[in-house]
Amino acid sequence: MPKLSDQEKEARRARVLEGARRCFARYGYEGATVVRLEREIGLSRGAIFNWFPSKQELFLALAAEDNTRLQALFAEEGFDALLEAVTEHEPDWLAVYLEFGRRLKADPGLRERWIAISPPEARERSRAWIERGQASGDLRGDVSSEEIGQFLGVVIDGIVAQRALGFDPPASDVVLRFVRDATQARGGNRDGGG
Amino acid sequence: MPKLSDQEKEARRARVLEGARRCFARYGYEGATVVRLEREIGLSRGAIFNWFPSKQELFLALAAEDNTRLQALFAEEGFDALLEAVTEHEPDWLAVYLEFGRRLKADPGLRERWIAISPPEARERSRAWIERGQASGDLRGDVSSEEIGQFLGVVIDGIVAQRALGFDPPASDVVLRFVRDATQARGGNRDGGG
Repeated sequence: MPKLSDQEKEARRARVLEGARRCFARYGYEGATVVRLEREIGLSRGAIFNWFPSKQELFLALAAEDNTRLQALFAEEGFDALLEAVTEHEPDWLAVYLEFGRRLKADPGLRERWIAISPPEARERSRAWIERGQASGDLRGDVSSEEIGQFLGVVIDGIVAQRALGFDPPASDVVLRFVRDATQARGGNRDGGG
Repeated sequence: MPKLSDQEKEARRARVLEGARRCFARYGYEGATVVRLEREIGLSRGAIFNWFPSKQELFLALAAEDNTRLQALFAEEGFDALLEAVTEHEPDWLAVYLEFGRRLKADPGLRERWIAISPPEARERSRAWIERGQASGDLRGDVSSEEIGQFLGVVIDGIVAQRALGFDPPASDVVLRFVRDATQARGGNRDGGG
């Protein structure tokens, strides 16, 4: 087997991930057989599993990619940008998360890994975004930053679940309107003209 | 086969539904085979499918039961009671919804039936609850009742998804605090002491 340069290795790894993402979205987690992964990625099973030891590891790597990207988006641009990104994800791909969820539920060890999928520094940056908002008086200060994060997580998971199941969630501007009123510090009376 | 009285019929139907619910929660939708349904319900397949022509119809009947109960709870007691009920549902049962979701997504005809699962009068009562709140000045009036309903649906679906995947959603009082601020009319300044 010829030696690959670091750049070629990175490109190969990216190709495996992109093909696997398409394959999962198209056939679902269970339906993404080795034969289908080979076909969609365009590499042999030997080459694929050289990079990721199992289908599960492939999916976890993709979920880690998503998670890192979304956490960064939130930490840099805020909830609006995060909501936008989630709204742009393909429903077929989101459905793979729900399907994979059965495994998470059945396997506590896997769930631990899942929770650790987002690097601590990414979570820390997200928390810092909320705390800056609280310090500046934009976000409410009468609840903890963790509680704000948890509530935003529920809203995002609700949108993801609705899209993954093939339903249309409410328009982003409607969602944002409620989320802002739930999380922002109150400057005035909304019903008045504040 | 001996004739059953109407009362016996109703009891038989309820027994089939209860057993099927346990079986789905225990083995998942796909895993609930006819043999397992027979064992969990304690009736032969002939007797079971005499009431519901297929496994899919059995699940739809259970989902309709849930939906009717939750809509009534919301219309009579409000969002707090609905949230409480969803928090009490077994995660294993909620996970069946997510699993069934793949079918909904793949089958537009089934999705139409799913949307129609909640009787129009139940939805109407839920809408009336929101509109009464708006008229009395408890709920915000600067958005439509439909938008409030959609947002509450996102929150509930987020809680359901988190529980179905085996995670712990935030405590109900935390969720309610944000939801109230998102949906209630503003009388005063939260950060002050209003």
